[in-house]
Amino acid sequence: MGITLAQAQAAIESAKMKAQELNLKMNIALVDAGANLVAFARMDNAWLGSVDIAIKKARTARFFDMPTGNLGQASQPGGPLYNIEHSNGGLITFPGGIPIKDANGEVIGAIGVSGSTVENDHAVAEAGVHAI
Amino acid sequence: MGITLAQAQAAIESAKMKAQELNLKMNIALVDAGANLVAFARMDNAWLGSVDIAIKKARTARFFDMPTGNLGQASQPGGPLYNIEHSNGGLITFPGGIPIKDANGEVIGAIGVSGSTVENDHAVAEAGVHAI
Amino acid sequence: MGITLAQAQAAIESAKMKAQELNLKMNIALVDAGANLVAFARMDNAWLGSVDIAIKKARTARFFDMPTGNLGQASQPGGPLYNIEHSNGGLITFPGGIPIKDANGEVIGAIGVSGSTVENDHAVAEAGVHAI
Amino acid sequence: MGITLAQAQAAIESAKMKAQELNLKMNIALVDAGANLVAFARMDNAWLGSVDIAIKKARTARFFDMPTGNLGQASQPGGPLYNIEHSNGGLITFPGGIPIKDANGEVIGAIGVSGSTVENDHAVAEAGVHAI
Repeated sequence: MGITLAQAQAAIESAKMKAQELNLKMNIALVDAGANLVAFARMDNAWLGSVDIAIKKARTARFFDMPTGNLGQASQPGGPLYNIEHSNGGLITFPGGIPIKDANGEVIGAIGVSGSTVENDHAVAEAGVHAI
Repeated sequence: MGITLAQAQAAIESAKMKAQELNLKMNIALVDAGANLVAFARMDNAWLGSVDIAIKKARTARFFDMPTGNLGQASQPGGPLYNIEHSNGGLITFPGGIPIKDANGEVIGAIGVSGSTVENDHAVAEAGVHAI
Repeated sequence: MGITLAQAQAAIESAKMKAQELNLKMNIALVDAGANLVAFARMDNAWLGSVDIAIKKARTARFFDMPTGNLGQASQPGGPLYNIEHSNGGLITFPGGIPIKDANGEVIGAIGVSGSTVENDHAVAEAGVHAI
Repeated sequence: MGITLAQAQAAIESAKMKAQELNLKMNIALVDAGANLVAFARMDNAWLGSVDIAIKKARTARFFDMPTGNLGQASQPGGPLYNIEHSNGGLITFPGGIPIKDANGEVIGAIGVSGSTVENDHAVAEAGVHAI
């Protein structure tokens, strides 16, 4: 079923350190290969609305095995996946969600980060991925 | 109420063969004339997020008796059906859903396919329709 | 991620044969280890309301790695898990859902059957399990 | 808004140690004074269905500032709060959720634990509370 709790917590710590380095307050979520929540952390004073967004970003990244921002490029008006966000109880398709792979390239879960600009969200998510 | 389970399973097998021919991993859903699910198959390692999308494409195609992509042209910003995706618990209006008609031209159900580009999704859905 | 599509389809065929033997019309759903839908079939003229119940039974059985009826004994008024059905977007806790294990005893998915009495639903689900 | 992430993570570690001592696999959720998620952890191989239940227990405990089991006594058939579980997008009213107070007795959040019997869930939740 993919990532362990120990891996997920290591990713959260890594992401949290990156966020502190950038002076940001983030929500960080990790899901397993089945897109089910494994671990979550909201840094003090991080946006409340980002709890759900971080979780949805992690789920979206695992649902389609790609960074959430890639999906968002295709879901714009006129794009091939316009309004895909209405599926799966709500997707988040802007950057901040990234799939996590094992050494064999198999997807074992995903991370979702929300709380700042999408560039910062993505950078903090990447720091989490690198911990695994 | 339209297509039988035997027809739906034949459509799934046909769509699956087309997907294998194109080296794709698809989610395939069939609904009857009442827009209720008749049969579903997720090919191994197909996107998890496409389970719901395949089902919603099939339902959307039967809800309006047209290919889902047609609806998506009218649901764009400024279009006559802007954001129709908010109805019916979530519609999917990009290609991959196609109504299925009997010999008299009456709609007896629909197929929805998701797991690749919308062009591939539509092509695999068409292979499913041709089986019936 | 558990059961393959081939295994899920074999389970559906087995359950369907059992249902035909008992002269019943069933909805049959299979989920994988992540509780995500793999395959589904509604026999001709089976109850429409049982589409969702079959899927929820399969999910419930995997959610708690036990037959759904076991959970239902604990969720009665006065029972320790009273009204657990309000979680996870809706659980079904009467019989008809059964986890599926591999040779090592690890849960690799679950089956859910709905369309008749709970005794019949459970018997048909068991026939599906035996196919794997 | 109540408990900090550091406090929530300390509670999770404490609850996790208690669970390991009892040889249990738990889902553990912490919410703040606003009933919004602060931290979450699913121990390896814990029930998937308990992700949502742990979060709902924590929210329920803060919603009414009492242990979830107390509410469950009043929500039985014939009781004064019959079927209160239908509110707030789903409550869980059996034991395993406990409010967390500061030194002045003010509620600063709540913990929810799910994954075993309600007695075990409550005992592990209490271990989490004691860490704060």
